[in-house]
Amino acid sequence: MSTRPRPIPRPEPDPTTHVASSPGVLSVRSARVKHARRLATRSFRVKTGEFLAEGPQAVREALTLAGTVIEVFATAEASRRHKAWQADGLTWHVVDDDVLVEIADSVQPQGIVARCRDLTRTIASIEAIAWRLVIVCFEIRDPGNLGAVIRVADAAGADAVLVIGDSVDPLNPKVVRSTAGSLFHLPIVVERDADRALTLIGRRDVQLLAADGGGEAQLFDDAVDLARPTAWLMGNEAHGLPMAVRERCDQVVGVPIYGRAESLNLATAAAVCAYASAHALRG
Amino acid sequence: MSTRPRPIPRPEPDPTTHVASSPGVLSVRSARVKHARRLATRSFRVKTGEFLAEGPQAVREALTLAGTVIEVFATAEASRRHKAWQADGLTWHVVDDDVLVEIADSVQPQGIVARCRDLTRTIASIEAIAWRLVIVCFEIRDPGNLGAVIRVADAAGADAVLVIGDSVDPLNPKVVRSTAGSLFHLPIVVERDADRALTLIGRRDVQLLAADGGGEAQLFDDAVDLARPTAWLMGNEAHGLPMAVRERCDQVVGVPIYGRAESLNLATAAAVCAYASAHALRG
Repeated sequence: MSTRPRPIPRPEPDPTTHVASSPGVLSVRSARVKHARRLATRSFRVKTGEFLAEGPQAVREALTLAGTVIEVFATAEASRRHKAWQADGLTWHVVDDDVLVEIADSVQPQGIVARCRDLTRTIASIEAIAWRLVIVCFEIRDPGNLGAVIRVADAAGADAVLVIGDSVDPLNPKVVRSTAGSLFHLPIVVERDADRALTLIGRRDVQLLAADGGGEAQLFDDAVDLARPTAWLMGNEAHGLPMAVRERCDQVVGVPIYGRAESLNLATAAAVCAYASAHALRG
Repeated sequence: MSTRPRPIPRPEPDPTTHVASSPGVLSVRSARVKHARRLATRSFRVKTGEFLAEGPQAVREALTLAGTVIEVFATAEASRRHKAWQADGLTWHVVDDDVLVEIADSVQPQGIVARCRDLTRTIASIEAIAWRLVIVCFEIRDPGNLGAVIRVADAAGADAVLVIGDSVDPLNPKVVRSTAGSLFHLPIVVERDADRALTLIGRRDVQLLAADGGGEAQLFDDAVDLARPTAWLMGNEAHGLPMAVRERCDQVVGVPIYGRAESLNLATAAAVCAYASAHALRG
Protein backbone atom coordinates (compact mmCIF):
# COMPACT_ATOMS: atom_id res chain seq x y z
CA MET A 1 0.00 0.00 0.00
CA SER A 2 1.15 3.49 -0.81
CA THR A 3 1.38 6.13 1.88
CA ARG A 4 -0.45 8.46 -0.51
CA PRO A 5 -4.02 8.64 0.85
CA ARG A 6 -6.72 7.26 -1.37
CA PRO A 7 -8.82 9.93 -3.08
CA ILE A 8 -11.99 11.00 -1.30
CA PRO A 9 -14.91 9.91 -3.49
CA ARG A 10 -16.63 12.92 -4.96
CA PRO A 11 -19.67 13.35 -7.18
CA GLU A 12 -19.05 12.87 -10.88
CA PRO A 13 -19.66 15.95 -13.01
CA ASP A 14 -23.30 16.54 -13.91
CA PRO A 15 -23.94 14.47 -17.06
CA THR A 16 -25.71 17.43 -18.68
CA THR A 17 -22.31 19.14 -18.88
CA HIS A 18 -20.95 16.34 -21.05
CA VAL A 19 -21.14 18.70 -23.99
CA ALA A 20 -19.16 21.81 -24.70
CA SER A 21 -20.49 24.70 -22.63
CA SER A 22 -20.38 28.26 -23.92
CA PRO A 23 -18.12 31.17 -23.02
CA GLY A 24 -19.47 33.15 -20.09
CA VAL A 25 -21.22 30.18 -18.46
CA LEU A 26 -18.34 29.67 -16.05
CA SER A 27 -16.91 32.67 -14.22
CA VAL A 28 -13.94 33.04 -11.89
CA ARG A 29 -16.46 32.71 -9.04
CA SER A 30 -17.90 29.36 -10.21
CA ALA A 31 -17.39 26.51 -7.74
CA ARG A 32 -15.97 24.38 -10.55
CA VAL A 33 -13.36 27.00 -11.38
CA LYS A 34 -12.44 27.51 -7.73
CA HIS A 35 -12.09 23.75 -7.34
CA ALA A 36 -9.70 23.55 -10.29
CA ARG A 37 -7.73 26.53 -9.00
CA ARG A 38 -7.20 24.86 -5.61
CA LEU A 39 -5.44 21.94 -7.32
CA ALA A 40 -2.35 24.16 -7.34
CA THR A 41 -1.86 23.07 -3.70
CA ARG A 42 -0.57 19.65 -2.77
CA SER A 43 -3.04 19.21 0.10
CA PHE A 44 -6.04 19.67 -2.20
CA ARG A 45 -4.52 17.34 -4.81
CA VAL A 46 -4.07 14.65 -2.16
CA LYS A 47 -7.57 15.24 -0.75
CA THR A 48 -9.28 15.01 -4.13
CA GLY A 49 -6.96 12.65 -5.98
CA GLU A 50 -6.86 15.11 -8.85
CA PHE A 51 -4.37 17.39 -10.59
CA LEU A 52 -4.12 19.78 -13.55
CA ALA A 53 -2.51 19.28 -16.93
CA GLU A 54 -1.81 22.66 -18.52
CA GLY A 55 -1.14 23.51 -22.15
CA PRO A 56 -1.88 21.58 -25.35
CA GLN A 57 1.05 19.15 -25.06
CA ALA A 58 0.10 17.96 -21.57
CA VAL A 59 -3.63 17.84 -22.34
CA ARG A 60 -3.05 15.88 -25.55
CA GLU A 61 -0.92 13.29 -23.76
CA ALA A 62 -3.37 13.12 -20.83
CA LEU A 63 -6.18 12.34 -23.28
CA THR A 64 -4.21 9.35 -24.61
CA LEU A 65 -4.34 7.78 -21.15
CA ALA A 66 -7.84 6.33 -20.71
CA GLY A 67 -9.76 7.50 -17.65
CA THR A 68 -7.33 10.29 -16.80
CA VAL A 69 -9.05 13.48 -17.96
CA ILE A 70 -12.16 14.51 -15.97
CA GLU A 71 -12.90 17.77 -17.78
CA VAL A 72 -11.24 20.31 -20.05
CA PHE A 73 -11.30 24.09 -19.76
CA ALA A 74 -10.37 25.88 -22.99
CA THR A 75 -10.76 29.31 -24.53
CA ALA A 76 -12.91 29.60 -27.66
CA GLU A 77 -9.79 29.86 -29.77
CA ALA A 78 -8.12 26.81 -28.20
CA SER A 79 -11.41 24.90 -28.48
CA ARG A 80 -11.45 25.54 -32.24
CA ARG A 81 -7.78 24.62 -32.58
CA HIS A 82 -8.21 21.34 -30.68
CA LYS A 83 -11.72 20.48 -31.97
CA ALA A 84 -10.59 16.93 -32.79
CA TRP A 85 -10.06 16.21 -29.08
CA GLN A 86 -13.71 16.89 -28.10
CA ALA A 87 -14.84 13.27 -27.99
CA ASP A 88 -18.23 12.01 -26.78
CA GLY A 89 -18.42 11.77 -23.02
CA LEU A 90 -15.64 14.31 -22.43
CA THR A 91 -16.74 17.38 -20.51
CA TRP A 92 -15.36 20.38 -22.37
CA HIS A 93 -15.91 23.92 -21.03
CA VAL A 94 -15.40 26.84 -23.34
CA VAL A 95 -14.29 29.63 -21.01
CA ASP A 96 -13.23 33.25 -21.15
CA ASP A 97 -9.56 34.12 -20.92
CA ASP A 98 -9.84 35.39 -17.35
CA VAL A 99 -11.25 32.04 -16.20
CA LEU A 100 -8.42 30.13 -17.81
CA VAL A 101 -5.82 32.44 -16.28
CA GLU A 102 -7.52 31.95 -12.88
CA ILE A 103 -7.31 28.15 -13.12
CA ALA A 104 -3.83 27.78 -14.55
CA ASP A 105 -0.62 27.86 -12.57
CA SER A 106 1.50 28.60 -15.62
CA VAL A 107 1.79 32.03 -17.20
CA GLN A 108 1.31 30.55 -20.67
CA PRO A 109 -1.26 27.71 -20.53
CA GLN A 110 -1.90 28.37 -24.25
CA GLY A 111 -5.65 28.44 -23.73
CA ILE A 112 -6.21 24.94 -22.36
CA VAL A 113 -6.14 23.12 -19.02
CA ALA A 114 -7.45 19.64 -18.10
CA ARG A 115 -8.54 18.45 -14.67
CA CYS A 116 -7.16 14.92 -14.34
CA ARG A 117 -7.36 11.94 -12.00
CA ASP A 118 -4.21 11.12 -10.03
CA LEU A 119 -2.18 8.71 -12.19
CA THR A 120 0.57 7.87 -9.74
CA ARG A 121 0.91 4.23 -8.75
CA THR A 122 1.93 2.16 -5.79
CA ILE A 123 5.04 0.02 -6.06
CA ALA A 124 2.82 -3.04 -5.65
CA SER A 125 0.91 -2.06 -8.79
CA ILE A 126 4.05 -2.29 -10.94
CA GLU A 127 5.18 -5.63 -9.50
CA ALA A 128 3.99 -7.41 -12.62
CA ILE A 129 5.94 -5.36 -15.16
CA ALA A 130 9.51 -6.18 -16.18
CA TRP A 131 12.16 -3.90 -14.71
CA ARG A 132 15.03 -3.43 -17.10
CA LEU A 133 15.65 0.24 -16.45
CA VAL A 134 14.04 2.17 -13.62
CA ILE A 135 14.88 5.65 -12.32
CA VAL A 136 14.45 6.19 -8.57
CA CYS A 137 14.31 9.80 -7.32
CA PHE A 138 15.15 10.22 -3.63
CA GLU A 139 14.04 13.48 -2.00
CA ILE A 140 14.17 15.59 -5.14
CA ARG A 141 12.89 19.04 -4.13
CA ASP A 142 12.92 21.17 -7.27
CA PRO A 143 9.89 20.72 -9.56
CA GLY A 144 11.89 21.51 -12.69
CA ASN A 145 14.46 18.89 -11.77
CA LEU A 146 11.93 16.13 -11.15
CA GLY A 147 10.11 16.98 -14.38
CA ALA A 148 13.35 16.93 -16.36
CA VAL A 149 14.32 13.54 -14.86
CA ILE A 150 10.90 12.06 -15.77
CA ARG A 151 11.36 13.34 -19.32
CA VAL A 152 14.86 11.82 -19.49
CA ALA A 153 13.56 8.49 -18.12
CA ASP A 154 10.85 8.42 -20.79
CA ALA A 155 13.32 9.27 -23.57
CA ALA A 156 15.74 6.56 -22.41
CA GLY A 157 12.91 4.01 -22.45
CA ALA A 158 12.74 3.46 -18.68
CA ASP A 159 10.02 1.12 -17.42
CA ALA A 160 9.04 3.38 -14.51
CA VAL A 161 10.05 6.35 -12.37
CA LEU A 162 9.88 5.91 -8.59
CA VAL A 163 9.62 9.07 -6.49
CA ILE A 164 10.56 8.13 -2.94
CA GLY A 165 10.94 9.85 0.42
CA ASP A 166 10.17 13.52 0.95
CA SER A 167 10.21 14.53 -2.73
CA VAL A 168 8.26 17.19 -4.58
CA ASP A 169 4.85 15.91 -5.73
CA PRO A 170 5.06 14.70 -9.37
CA LEU A 171 1.54 16.15 -9.87
CA ASN A 172 2.75 19.65 -8.95
CA PRO A 173 1.91 21.89 -11.95
CA LYS A 174 5.55 22.85 -12.48
CA VAL A 175 6.61 19.19 -12.52
CA VAL A 176 3.81 18.29 -14.93
CA ARG A 177 4.86 21.12 -17.23
CA SER A 178 8.55 20.31 -17.21
CA THR A 179 7.94 16.64 -18.09
CA ALA A 180 6.75 17.93 -21.51
CA GLY A 181 4.09 15.19 -21.67
CA SER A 182 6.29 12.37 -20.38
CA LEU A 183 4.32 12.19 -17.10
CA PHE A 184 1.63 10.37 -19.09
CA HIS A 185 3.99 7.95 -20.85
CA LEU A 186 5.32 5.68 -18.13
CA PRO A 187 4.32 4.51 -14.64
CA ILE A 188 5.10 7.10 -11.97
CA VAL A 189 5.29 5.53 -8.51
CA VAL A 190 5.09 7.63 -5.34
CA GLU A 191 6.25 6.05 -2.08
CA ARG A 192 7.01 8.45 0.75
CA ASP A 193 8.44 5.65 2.89
CA ALA A 194 11.90 5.43 1.29
CA ASP A 195 12.91 2.48 3.45
CA ARG A 196 9.91 0.46 2.29
CA ALA A 197 10.62 1.39 -1.34
CA LEU A 198 14.26 0.30 -1.10
CA THR A 199 13.22 -2.99 0.48
CA LEU A 200 10.81 -3.71 -2.37
CA ILE A 201 13.43 -2.72 -4.97
CA GLY A 202 15.85 -5.10 -3.23
CA ARG A 203 13.51 -8.02 -3.91
CA ARG A 204 13.52 -7.36 -7.66
CA ASP A 205 16.08 -8.85 -10.00
CA VAL A 206 17.79 -5.53 -10.67
CA GLN A 207 21.03 -4.00 -9.50
CA LEU A 208 20.52 -0.79 -7.53
CA LEU A 209 23.14 1.77 -8.57
CA ALA A 210 23.49 5.00 -6.63
CA ALA A 211 24.43 7.89 -8.92
CA ASP A 212 26.86 9.82 -6.75
CA GLY A 213 30.04 11.71 -7.52
CA GLY A 214 31.75 10.33 -4.44
CA GLY A 215 31.31 6.75 -5.62
CA GLU A 216 33.86 3.95 -5.62
CA ALA A 217 33.29 3.35 -9.33
CA GLN A 218 32.97 5.52 -12.42
CA LEU A 219 30.24 5.14 -15.00
CA PHE A 220 32.30 3.74 -17.87
CA ASP A 221 34.55 1.48 -15.74
CA ASP A 222 34.62 -2.23 -16.55
CA ALA A 223 33.57 -2.82 -12.94
CA VAL A 224 30.16 -1.36 -13.71
CA ASP A 225 28.02 -3.83 -15.64
CA LEU A 226 25.47 -1.66 -17.40
CA ALA A 227 24.11 -4.57 -19.45
CA ARG A 228 22.24 -5.85 -16.36
CA PRO A 229 18.75 -4.64 -15.46
CA THR A 230 19.31 -1.53 -13.37
CA ALA A 231 17.54 0.81 -10.99
CA TRP A 232 19.40 4.15 -10.91
CA LEU A 233 19.02 6.01 -7.62
CA MET A 234 19.31 9.80 -7.96
CA GLY A 235 19.72 11.82 -4.75
CA ASN A 236 18.65 15.19 -3.43
CA GLU A 237 20.03 18.21 -5.34
CA ALA A 238 21.86 19.70 -2.36
CA HIS A 239 22.65 16.77 -0.08
CA GLY A 240 22.90 13.79 -2.42
CA LEU A 241 22.21 10.41 -0.85
CA PRO A 242 22.61 9.76 2.89
CA MET A 243 25.11 7.07 3.87
CA ALA A 244 22.35 4.74 5.08
CA VAL A 245 20.79 4.83 1.62
CA ARG A 246 24.09 4.47 -0.26
CA GLU A 247 24.86 1.38 1.80
CA ARG A 248 21.73 -0.31 0.51
CA CYS A 249 22.90 0.04 -3.10
CA ASP A 250 24.86 -2.60 -4.99
CA GLN A 251 27.33 0.02 -6.18
CA VAL A 252 27.86 3.76 -5.88
CA VAL A 253 28.72 5.05 -9.34
CA GLY A 254 29.88 8.54 -10.29
CA VAL A 255 29.66 10.21 -13.67
CA PRO A 256 33.32 10.93 -14.44
CA ILE A 257 34.26 14.62 -14.40
CA TYR A 258 36.85 15.07 -17.15
CA GLY A 259 37.10 18.83 -16.71
CA ARG A 260 37.01 21.09 -13.65
CA ALA A 261 33.26 21.17 -12.89
CA GLU A 262 32.42 20.12 -9.35
CA SER A 263 29.50 18.03 -10.52
CA LEU A 264 26.70 17.74 -13.05
CA ASN A 265 23.22 18.97 -12.26
CA LEU A 266 20.61 16.34 -11.44
CA ALA A 267 18.89 16.12 -14.84
CA THR A 268 22.10 15.98 -16.85
CA ALA A 269 23.58 13.33 -14.54
CA ALA A 270 20.38 11.30 -14.88
CA ALA A 271 20.57 11.66 -18.66
CA VAL A 272 24.15 10.38 -18.85
CA CYS A 273 23.42 7.44 -16.51
CA ALA A 274 20.08 6.48 -18.09
CA TYR A 275 21.44 6.59 -21.64
CA ALA A 276 24.58 4.65 -20.72
CA SER A 277 22.28 1.91 -19.36
CA ALA A 278 19.78 2.12 -22.21
CA HIS A 279 22.57 1.75 -24.75
CA ALA A 280 24.24 -1.14 -22.90
CA LEU A 281 20.93 -2.96 -22.35
CA ARG A 282 20.35 -2.87 -26.11
CA GLY A 283 23.79 -4.41 -26.64
CA MET B 1 37.96 39.88 -34.72
CA SER B 2 34.87 39.32 -32.61
CA THR B 3 31.71 41.30 -33.26
CA ARG B 4 31.61 41.94 -29.51
CA PRO B 5 32.84 45.55 -29.12
CA ARG B 6 36.05 46.05 -27.23
CA PRO B 7 35.57 47.39 -23.71
CA ILE B 8 35.62 51.15 -23.32
CA PRO B 9 38.73 52.01 -21.26
CA ARG B 10 37.69 53.22 -17.85
CA PRO B 11 39.64 54.50 -14.87
CA GLU B 12 41.00 51.85 -12.56
CA PRO B 13 39.57 51.90 -9.04
CA ASP B 14 41.23 54.40 -6.75
CA PRO B 15 44.30 52.65 -5.28
CA THR B 16 43.37 53.84 -1.80
CA THR B 17 40.40 51.44 -1.91
CA HIS B 18 42.71 48.46 -2.34
CA VAL B 19 41.90 47.58 1.20
CA ALA B 20 38.69 46.38 2.71
CA SER B 21 36.36 49.35 3.26
CA SER B 22 33.93 49.39 6.15
CA PRO B 23 30.18 48.80 6.29
CA GLY B 24 28.24 51.96 5.62
CA VAL B 25 30.92 53.57 3.42
CA LEU B 26 29.06 52.54 0.29
CA SER B 27 25.32 53.17 0.06
CA VAL B 28 22.75 52.21 -2.55
CA ARG B 29 23.26 55.72 -3.95
CA SER B 30 27.04 55.39 -4.41
CA ALA B 31 28.17 55.67 -8.03
CA ARG B 32 30.16 52.46 -7.61
CA VAL B 33 27.06 50.57 -6.48
CA LYS B 34 24.92 52.00 -9.27
CA HIS B 35 27.62 51.06 -11.77
CA ALA B 36 27.62 47.45 -10.53
CA ARG B 37 23.83 47.34 -10.57
CA ARG B 38 23.70 48.42 -14.21
CA LEU B 39 25.76 45.35 -15.19
CA ALA B 40 22.46 43.44 -15.06
CA THR B 41 21.81 44.84 -18.56
CA ARG B 42 23.57 43.50 -21.62
CA SER B 43 24.11 46.95 -23.12
CA PHE B 44 26.04 48.13 -20.07
CA ARG B 45 28.06 44.91 -19.95
CA VAL B 46 29.04 45.40 -23.60
CA LYS B 47 29.81 49.10 -23.06
CA THR B 48 32.03 48.49 -20.04
CA GLY B 49 33.39 45.04 -20.82
CA GLU B 50 32.41 43.95 -17.32
CA PHE B 51 29.98 41.58 -15.64
CA LEU B 52 29.01 40.29 -12.19
CA ALA B 53 29.81 36.99 -10.52
CA GLU B 54 27.32 36.36 -7.69
CA GLY B 55 27.60 33.98 -4.77
CA PRO B 56 30.64 32.31 -3.17
CA GLN B 57 31.04 29.58 -5.79
CA ALA B 58 31.21 32.00 -8.72
CA VAL B 59 33.42 34.49 -6.86
CA ARG B 60 35.84 31.77 -5.75
CA GLU B 61 36.18 30.45 -9.31
CA ALA B 62 36.51 33.99 -10.72
CA LEU B 63 39.37 34.64 -8.30
CA THR B 64 41.26 31.62 -9.69
CA LEU B 65 41.33 33.29 -13.13
CA ALA B 66 44.05 35.95 -12.98
CA GLY B 67 42.99 39.48 -13.93
CA THR B 68 39.27 38.71 -13.88
CA VAL B 69 38.01 40.20 -10.63
CA ILE B 70 38.02 44.02 -10.43
CA GLU B 71 36.42 44.36 -6.99
CA VAL B 72 34.40 42.39 -4.48
CA PHE B 73 31.31 43.50 -2.56
CA ALA B 74 30.56 41.40 0.51
CA THR B 75 28.58 41.68 3.71
CA ALA B 76 30.50 41.70 6.99
CA GLU B 77 29.51 38.10 7.60
CA ALA B 78 30.55 36.91 4.12
CA SER B 79 33.79 38.89 4.46
CA ARG B 80 34.63 36.99 7.63
CA ARG B 81 33.68 33.66 6.06
CA HIS B 82 35.84 34.28 2.99
CA LYS B 83 38.69 36.11 4.71
CA ALA B 84 41.24 33.91 2.93
CA TRP B 85 40.24 35.39 -0.43
CA GLN B 86 41.15 38.98 0.55
CA ALA B 87 44.56 39.07 -1.12
CA ASP B 88 46.80 42.12 -1.54
CA GLY B 89 45.75 44.32 -4.43
CA LEU B 90 42.17 43.09 -4.45
CA THR B 91 39.57 45.77 -3.76
CA TRP B 92 37.16 44.38 -1.21
CA HIS B 93 34.16 46.41 -0.05
CA VAL B 94 32.40 45.42 3.14
CA VAL B 95 28.82 46.53 2.53
CA ASP B 96 25.47 46.51 4.27
CA ASP B 97 22.88 43.92 3.25
CA ASP B 98 20.74 46.46 1.37
CA VAL B 99 23.71 47.41 -0.83
CA LEU B 100 24.40 43.80 -1.70
CA VAL B 101 20.74 43.17 -2.52
CA GLU B 102 20.77 46.31 -4.72
CA ILE B 103 23.78 45.10 -6.70
CA ALA B 104 22.86 41.45 -7.10
CA ASP B 105 20.53 40.03 -9.73
CA SER B 106 19.96 36.84 -7.77
CA VAL B 107 17.66 36.57 -4.78
CA GLN B 108 20.28 34.62 -2.83
CA PRO B 109 23.75 36.02 -3.58
CA GLN B 110 24.86 34.60 -0.20
CA GLY B 111 26.49 37.86 0.80
CA ILE B 112 29.05 38.24 -1.99
CA VAL B 113 29.29 39.62 -5.53
CA ALA B 114 32.36 40.33 -7.67
CA ARG B 115 32.63 42.82 -10.51
CA CYS B 116 34.66 41.07 -13.21
CA ARG B 117 36.29 41.80 -16.54
CA ASP B 118 34.70 40.23 -19.61
CA LEU B 119 36.37 36.83 -20.06
CA THR B 120 34.80 35.82 -23.37
CA ARG B 121 37.16 35.22 -26.25
CA THR B 122 37.26 35.56 -30.00
CA ILE B 123 37.51 32.43 -32.11
CA ALA B 124 40.88 33.69 -33.34
CA SER B 125 42.16 33.65 -29.76
CA ILE B 126 41.56 29.93 -29.42
CA GLU B 127 43.15 29.03 -32.77
CA ALA B 128 46.24 27.80 -31.00
CA ILE B 129 44.57 25.33 -28.66
CA ALA B 130 43.81 21.73 -29.62
CA TRP B 131 40.17 20.99 -30.39
CA ARG B 132 39.21 17.50 -29.38
CA LEU B 133 35.77 18.26 -28.04
CA VAL B 134 34.02 21.60 -28.50
CA ILE B 135 30.39 22.50 -27.82
CA VAL B 136 28.85 25.07 -30.16
CA CYS B 137 25.61 26.76 -29.04
CA PHE B 138 23.56 28.26 -31.86
CA GLU B 139 20.94 30.87 -30.87
CA ILE B 140 20.31 29.51 -27.37
CA ARG B 141 17.88 31.94 -25.76
CA ASP B 142 17.26 30.67 -22.23
CA PRO B 143 19.94 31.67 -19.69
CA GLY B 144 19.42 28.51 -17.61
CA ASN B 145 19.91 26.34 -20.68
CA LEU B 146 23.13 28.05 -21.78
CA GLY B 147 24.48 27.88 -18.24
CA ALA B 148 23.65 24.19 -17.95
CA VAL B 149 25.32 23.45 -21.29
CA ILE B 150 28.50 25.29 -20.24
CA ARG B 151 28.53 23.23 -17.02
CA VAL B 152 28.06 20.00 -18.99
CA ALA B 153 30.85 20.99 -21.41
CA ASP B 154 33.20 21.62 -18.48
CA ALA B 155 32.29 18.31 -16.82
CA ALA B 156 32.82 16.39 -20.08
CA GLY B 157 36.26 18.00 -20.47
CA ALA B 158 35.44 20.10 -23.53
CA ASP B 159 38.20 22.39 -24.81
CA ALA B 160 35.86 25.35 -25.36
CA VAL B 161 32.25 26.47 -25.67
CA LEU B 162 31.35 28.61 -28.69
CA VAL B 163 28.23 30.77 -28.39
CA ILE B 164 27.23 31.78 -31.91
CA GLY B 165 24.48 33.79 -33.60
CA ASP B 166 21.77 35.60 -31.68
CA SER B 167 22.26 33.73 -28.37
CA VAL B 168 21.78 34.90 -24.81
CA ASP B 169 24.89 36.64 -23.44
CA PRO B 170 27.03 34.14 -21.46
CA LEU B 171 27.80 37.01 -19.03
CA ASN B 172 24.09 37.40 -18.19
CA PRO B 173 23.79 36.94 -14.39
CA LYS B 174 21.41 33.98 -14.77
CA VAL B 175 23.81 32.23 -17.14
CA VAL B 176 26.77 32.87 -14.83
CA ARG B 177 24.81 31.45 -11.91
CA SER B 178 23.64 28.32 -13.69
CA THR B 179 27.15 27.44 -14.88
CA ALA B 180 27.94 26.78 -11.17
CA GLY B 181 31.48 28.15 -11.64
CA SER B 182 32.17 26.43 -14.97
CA LEU B 183 32.13 29.78 -16.80
CA PHE B 184 35.61 30.36 -15.36
CA HIS B 185 36.98 26.91 -16.25
CA LEU B 186 37.17 26.81 -20.03
CA PRO B 187 37.36 29.28 -22.93
CA ILE B 188 33.96 30.80 -23.77
CA VAL B 189 33.88 32.21 -27.29
CA VAL B 190 31.19 34.66 -28.42
CA GLU B 191 30.69 35.16 -32.18
CA ARG B 192 27.41 36.74 -33.22
CA ASP B 193 28.16 36.13 -36.90
CA ALA B 194 27.21 32.43 -37.06
CA ASP B 195 28.27 32.13 -40.68
CA ARG B 196 31.75 33.36 -39.88
CA ALA B 197 31.97 31.00 -36.89
CA LEU B 198 30.95 27.98 -38.97
CA THR B 199 33.52 28.90 -41.63
CA LEU B 200 36.27 29.04 -39.02
CA ILE B 201 35.13 25.74 -37.47
CA GLY B 202 35.18 24.22 -40.97
CA ARG B 203 38.89 24.99 -41.25
CA ARG B 204 39.70 23.04 -38.08
CA ASP B 205 40.47 19.35 -38.10
CA VAL B 206 37.21 18.40 -36.33
CA GLN B 207 33.97 16.86 -37.54
CA LEU B 208 31.00 19.16 -37.02
CA LEU B 209 28.05 17.12 -35.74
CA ALA B 210 24.60 18.72 -35.51
CA ALA B 211 22.65 17.39 -32.53
CA ASP B 212 19.15 17.18 -33.93
CA GLY B 213 16.37 14.66 -33.47
CA GLY B 214 15.51 14.73 -37.16
CA GLY B 215 18.97 13.55 -38.13
CA GLU B 216 19.93 10.83 -40.57
CA ALA B 217 22.01 9.06 -37.92
CA GLN B 218 21.55 8.11 -34.27
CA LEU B 219 24.13 8.71 -31.58
CA PHE B 220 25.23 5.12 -30.97
CA ASP B 221 25.16 4.00 -34.65
CA ASP B 222 28.36 2.59 -36.11
CA ALA B 223 28.04 5.30 -38.77
CA VAL B 224 28.86 7.92 -36.15
CA ASP B 225 32.57 7.94 -35.34
CA LEU B 226 32.74 9.49 -31.89
CA ALA B 227 36.44 8.72 -31.50
CA ARG B 228 37.28 11.61 -33.86
CA PRO B 229 37.74 15.18 -32.62
CA THR B 230 34.26 16.67 -32.64
CA ALA B 231 32.43 19.96 -32.46
CA TRP B 232 28.83 19.35 -31.34
CA LEU B 233 26.40 21.96 -32.62
CA MET B 234 23.36 22.45 -30.36
CA GLY B 235 20.41 24.42 -31.79
CA ASN B 236 17.78 26.82 -30.49
CA GLU B 237 15.38 25.40 -27.87
CA ALA B 238 12.24 25.99 -29.94
CA HIS B 239 13.39 25.95 -33.55
CA GLY B 240 16.43 23.69 -33.55
CA LEU B 241 18.91 24.29 -36.37
CA PRO B 242 17.91 25.91 -39.67
CA MET B 243 18.45 23.82 -42.81
CA ALA B 244 21.23 26.14 -44.03
CA VAL B 245 23.16 25.45 -40.82
CA ARG B 246 22.47 21.68 -40.81
CA GLU B 247 23.82 21.48 -44.34
CA ARG B 248 27.17 22.83 -43.19
CA CYS B 249 27.58 19.96 -40.71
CA ASP B 250 29.38 16.71 -41.47
CA GLN B 251 26.50 14.72 -40.00
CA VAL B 252 23.15 15.37 -38.32
CA VAL B 253 22.94 13.07 -35.31
CA GLY B 254 19.93 12.47 -33.08
CA VAL B 255 19.92 11.15 -29.53
CA PRO B 256 17.81 7.98 -29.86
CA ILE B 257 14.40 8.17 -28.15
CA TYR B 258 13.76 4.68 -26.77
CA GLY B 259 10.47 5.63 -25.08
CA ARG B 260 7.67 7.98 -26.07
CA ALA B 261 9.17 11.38 -25.27
CA GLU B 262 9.17 13.78 -28.19
CA SER B 263 12.68 14.93 -27.45
CA LEU B 264 15.20 15.67 -24.72
CA ASN B 265 15.68 19.17 -23.40
CA LEU B 266 18.74 21.06 -24.54
CA ALA B 267 21.00 20.47 -21.52
CA THR B 268 20.24 16.75 -21.22
CA ALA B 269 20.77 16.23 -24.97
CA ALA B 270 24.08 18.09 -24.70
CA ALA B 271 25.05 15.90 -21.74
CA VAL B 272 24.37 12.65 -23.59
CA CYS B 273 26.23 13.83 -26.73
CA ALA B 274 29.20 15.35 -24.89
CA TYR B 275 29.70 12.31 -22.67
CA ALA B 276 29.36 9.86 -25.57
CA SER B 277 32.18 11.79 -27.28
CA ALA B 278 34.28 12.21 -24.15
CA HIS B 279 34.09 8.48 -23.46
CA ALA B 280 34.88 7.50 -27.06
CA LEU B 281 37.78 9.99 -27.31
CA ARG B 282 39.33 8.36 -24.23
CA GLY B 283 38.99 5.01 -25.98
